[in-house]
Amino acid sequence: MYRTHNCGELRIEDLGNEVILSGWVQKGRDLGGLTFVDLRDRYGITQLVFNVEENKKLTEQARTLAREFVIKATGFVRERSSKNPNRATGDIEIEVTNLQILNASKTPPFTIENQTDGGEELRMKYRYLDLRRSNIQQNLIFRSQLALRTRNYLSQNGFIEVETPNLIKSTPEGARDFVVPSRMNPGEFYALPQSPQTFKQILMVAGLDKYFQIVKCFRDEDLRADRQPEFTQIDCEMSFVTRDQILDQFEGLTKHLFKFMLNISLPDFPKMSYDEAMERYGSDKPDTRFEMEFIAFTEIVKGHGFPVFDSAEYIAGICVSGEAENYSNKQIKELTEWLQRPQIGCKGMIYVKYNIDGSIKSSVGKFYSDEQLNSWFKIANAKPGDMLLMLCGETEKTRKQLCELRLEMGRRLELMDPSKFNALWIVDFPLLEWDEDSERFHAMHHPFTSPKKEDVDRMLAGDHETMKALRADAYDLVINGSEIGGGSIRIHDRALQQRNFDLLGFTREEAENQFGFLMGAFEYGAPPHGGIAFGFDRLNAVMNGQNSIRDFIAFPKNTSGRDIMIDAPSKVDITQLDELNLALKNIPE
Amino acid sequence: MYRTHNCGELRIEDLGNEVILSGWVQKGRDLGGLTFVDLRDRYGITQLVFNVEENKKLTEQARTLAREFVIKATGFVRERSSKNPNRATGDIEIEVTNLQILNASKTPPFTIENQTDGGEELRMKYRYLDLRRSNIQQNLIFRSQLALRTRNYLSQNGFIEVETPNLIKSTPEGARDFVVPSRMNPGEFYALPQSPQTFKQILMVAGLDKYFQIVKCFRDEDLRADRQPEFTQIDCEMSFVTRDQILDQFEGLTKHLFKFMLNISLPDFPKMSYDEAMERYGSDKPDTRFEMEFIAFTEIVKGHGFPVFDSAEYIAGICVSGEAENYSNKQIKELTEWLQRPQIGCKGMIYVKYNIDGSIKSSVGKFYSDEQLNSWFKIANAKPGDMLLMLCGETEKTRKQLCELRLEMGRRLELMDPSKFNALWIVDFPLLEWDEDSERFHAMHHPFTSPKKEDVDRMLAGDHETMKALRADAYDLVINGSEIGGGSIRIHDRALQQRNFDLLGFTREEAENQFGFLMGAFEYGAPPHGGIAFGFDRLNAVMNGQNSIRDFIAFPKNTSGRDIMIDAPSKVDITQLDELNLALKNIPE
Repeated sequence: MYRTHNCGELRIEDLGNEVILSGWVQKGRDLGGLTFVDLRDRYGITQLVFNVEENKKLTEQARTLAREFVIKATGFVRERSSKNPNRATGDIEIEVTNLQILNASKTPPFTIENQTDGGEELRMKYRYLDLRRSNIQQNLIFRSQLALRTRNYLSQNGFIEVETPNLIKSTPEGARDFVVPSRMNPGEFYALPQSPQTFKQILMVAGLDKYFQIVKCFRDEDLRADRQPEFTQIDCEMSFVTRDQILDQFEGLTKHLFKFMLNISLPDFPKMSYDEAMERYGSDKPDTRFEMEFIAFTEIVKGHGFPVFDSAEYIAGICVSGEAENYSNKQIKELTEWLQRPQIGCKGMIYVKYNIDGSIKSSVGKFYSDEQLNSWFKIANAKPGDMLLMLCGETEKTRKQLCELRLEMGRRLELMDPSKFNALWIVDFPLLEWDEDSERFHAMHHPFTSPKKEDVDRMLAGDHETMKALRADAYDLVINGSEIGGGSIRIHDRALQQRNFDLLGFTREEAENQFGFLMGAFEYGAPPHGGIAFGFDRLNAVMNGQNSIRDFIAFPKNTSGRDIMIDAPSKVDITQLDELNLALKNIPE
Repeated sequence: MYRTHNCGELRIEDLGNEVILSGWVQKGRDLGGLTFVDLRDRYGITQLVFNVEENKKLTEQARTLAREFVIKATGFVRERSSKNPNRATGDIEIEVTNLQILNASKTPPFTIENQTDGGEELRMKYRYLDLRRSNIQQNLIFRSQLALRTRNYLSQNGFIEVETPNLIKSTPEGARDFVVPSRMNPGEFYALPQSPQTFKQILMVAGLDKYFQIVKCFRDEDLRADRQPEFTQIDCEMSFVTRDQILDQFEGLTKHLFKFMLNISLPDFPKMSYDEAMERYGSDKPDTRFEMEFIAFTEIVKGHGFPVFDSAEYIAGICVSGEAENYSNKQIKELTEWLQRPQIGCKGMIYVKYNIDGSIKSSVGKFYSDEQLNSWFKIANAKPGDMLLMLCGETEKTRKQLCELRLEMGRRLELMDPSKFNALWIVDFPLLEWDEDSERFHAMHHPFTSPKKEDVDRMLAGDHETMKALRADAYDLVINGSEIGGGSIRIHDRALQQRNFDLLGFTREEAENQFGFLMGAFEYGAPPHGGIAFGFDRLNAVMNGQNSIRDFIAFPKNTSGRDIMIDAPSKVDITQLDELNLALKNIPE
């Protein structure tokens, strides 16, 4: 037997008992007469003690132990003379009578503590050591419990978890698929699913009524900092439901998870239309933990001879509370340069400082009187000491830029309270986006999203301009500025689905070839249905007030899509390619 | 709103209430004055009734409904005049006041009933209709509950569910990998995991202590009737455990699942060594629901002038109870021919009938006296009326053949009671198998399996013959002749792992290239560990007394690895291949 107890379990009640513990040497301290060893496992740390006078040989053996050795220690629980109140086992220690080294360890390349000295690359290469750190283990335990709790909640609500296939069919729509050559079907490929979308709809046509799955999905995209080629979704679908029934169901799930995991009672989630979110925050995933909402200035500031404003389609600003006299010219300049970086692309920024003494300092004083500027303050609800920051230009672009500015000011002024969770639904998205470059519509959500009921007739019969104005019966769940989930009521009618594919530029043949099975299914009694998918990696990070999903994934890939630990992807044998009827070509040296 | 209740929910207590139901038309009956419609959903069937005298228009509308139409019906619950005791809702019916057709349906290509007239191919193509059949839906619901129950049990026992990656590294060991070309790493490939084996071991080195995952795995094998290219495992690993602790833990899980899902209390699982299983049943997955164990005749029957026996390495038989006078010469001949098919490959079969009157009829009467044959009966514990069936030849081959014969007789005599569940552990497998053709050892389980403790020194230092006799610390869980799970204590020592790779014919470079990360991990404090994986698809089928796993998989593939419904795999665009630096070659027309 390797252990009678784990390293986080023994208490003062166990005094005098003979126990066996196994674990890793966290550290040792040699105080001459006494040698102490902290023994660690997933459950905690227990102090072992060796007394040189009572057992010289054993103590000498203990002195040979180095960090991360795996040992088994037998001994008696005794009370510590100096207790450690910060440790659950801090009242006791083990007086060791027998010690066995189960495995030695080389010196680890970084310290195995919550605050480690290991860089990202090194920690990924030795992920098995990185995962020994208690904070990362707690993340994985949190994730495991969150998944279990989700499953129990949805199952108790009548949902069935159905595993949909991972080897499916490649479709050129949306992001790139990972493809899998089929040996048994030469020249043909499976694709890994970007989501189980069509399968869950098929399950609704099949009458499963309420489906969920916590499922891996795959996208071969160029990876931004916090994207992974494989990621996990809580994927759900329901039949015979209205939009609000779906929102209620998953608001219920979200509240339940926050209550159970964090003991936080979330208030009801407000619903905000896409248009309103864009107007107030310039984003369809606003961080509503802080205000600093957009103030529309377009009407009031135009026509006063300031050419930049006069020629702008859209002028708006934010009111930065109490910062008028904290922000120096230098800081304004630095902030302007931050906005001018190519990632954001502003031409410039206008500021108007409302000083505490009532005086005004502004970059547009030449064009506007103090009276005019005071009227701006009034619109902005600005108080003395506040500062207006304004951007202008083409509406959509400027909104995005002002959104970035708002978030940056929120970060700088530490307005994003990590212990606060603001959830809301964004609803009534546009159905279609017109892409000027490719001269075609794209689905804002995906090609299976239904227009709102009142827009169905217009969609079937309307002209080009009508299409741009169609609203989708789609919704996103946003928490603290992160899109946590998104979904829609789906089309369940063959003609409407066909119309959507037509609008999206599919030829009839392409639509039939790729999604014929789904349109076929719609002809055999498809029920009205809709659903949602939550980004499970992101949900874990957001619930823990963290930005990066990587520390919630046991074995993440780097931004080149590589697993550094196992060194994948890698070359494969030429015979393996032969079997797959494949050859490499144009491989760069 | 589409419904206030589902179609399985209303009872006599609901009399008089106004309700809304939605679902599929199972069938309609027009009795002139009254029209009945059976409305179906996942939860049950409720009868709708339309009275032509009370509402002619509505009744005429109801008469237009055909099978599988999706409708919404509003009405009042009333008591049925002729109740249906076989249906949960059989006491009531709905007097419909409003009817809405939500979606029409073409006539389905097969009947949507438990006993359907649809062939396999047709049912797979229209899987969304096949899945409407109640028995298949019940299978999926069972599977969902079994997974949830497994997760709750293991979580309550301290296991953490960790998601391991699906895009990993290809290794030529074992079955063929499915590979996934990497666009971002030209000329390189990921592989889909055949199991998370190395990752779960890494998690043990990382100190996760107890891991599990219900996880999809992938094997690019030529598919036998009941194999799938993607399949699901309950995958588990534990640290600081002995073999018997693992067996206890997962015997506990298995008993819990049978109790919870089927209300069956399984007795303790016996442990049987691999050698004993081969001697008694000729199989490492014996169906122990019936006896008919092997009787060894090699010693006693040799040397009496019957050349077939005299030249055989191994002679054994089974005693078929009470069939001596039921089996005609014709049947014996047919059975012999069944054994002579190439799949089994017997040269012949010897029978000895012990007639009820004590007389003996046998195919070897020329060579053995009645006295001798009577002594065989004694060894076999045969009673008058029994029949011995004997095979001979090379030991291993003959055991396999006799195993097939035993199972066939079990089937013919209906000895495999589908309501009976016999579970046992097979232990002490050989570590290595010598393959004469390739002149190398293969791992009987996998290359990470530890030899039994007492065999470690012999493995590190022994000669070729010693290697053949090494026992692995490996085990299988067998229920009713199906291998449900298998696992082992793993190697956690670099030197021993290296020795195993050497024995398995890996060059040092190959071993380092493929598994260097694992051997490296063993140098940083790897704990003793071991685990098990259950075939989840198979477990579902066995618990339901069924042979095929297909009806427990929502979207199975056919024996060519194709999904007929979505028509995958399929050709991909040439530009997609270009992006992956791939070209097709040698594609047959």
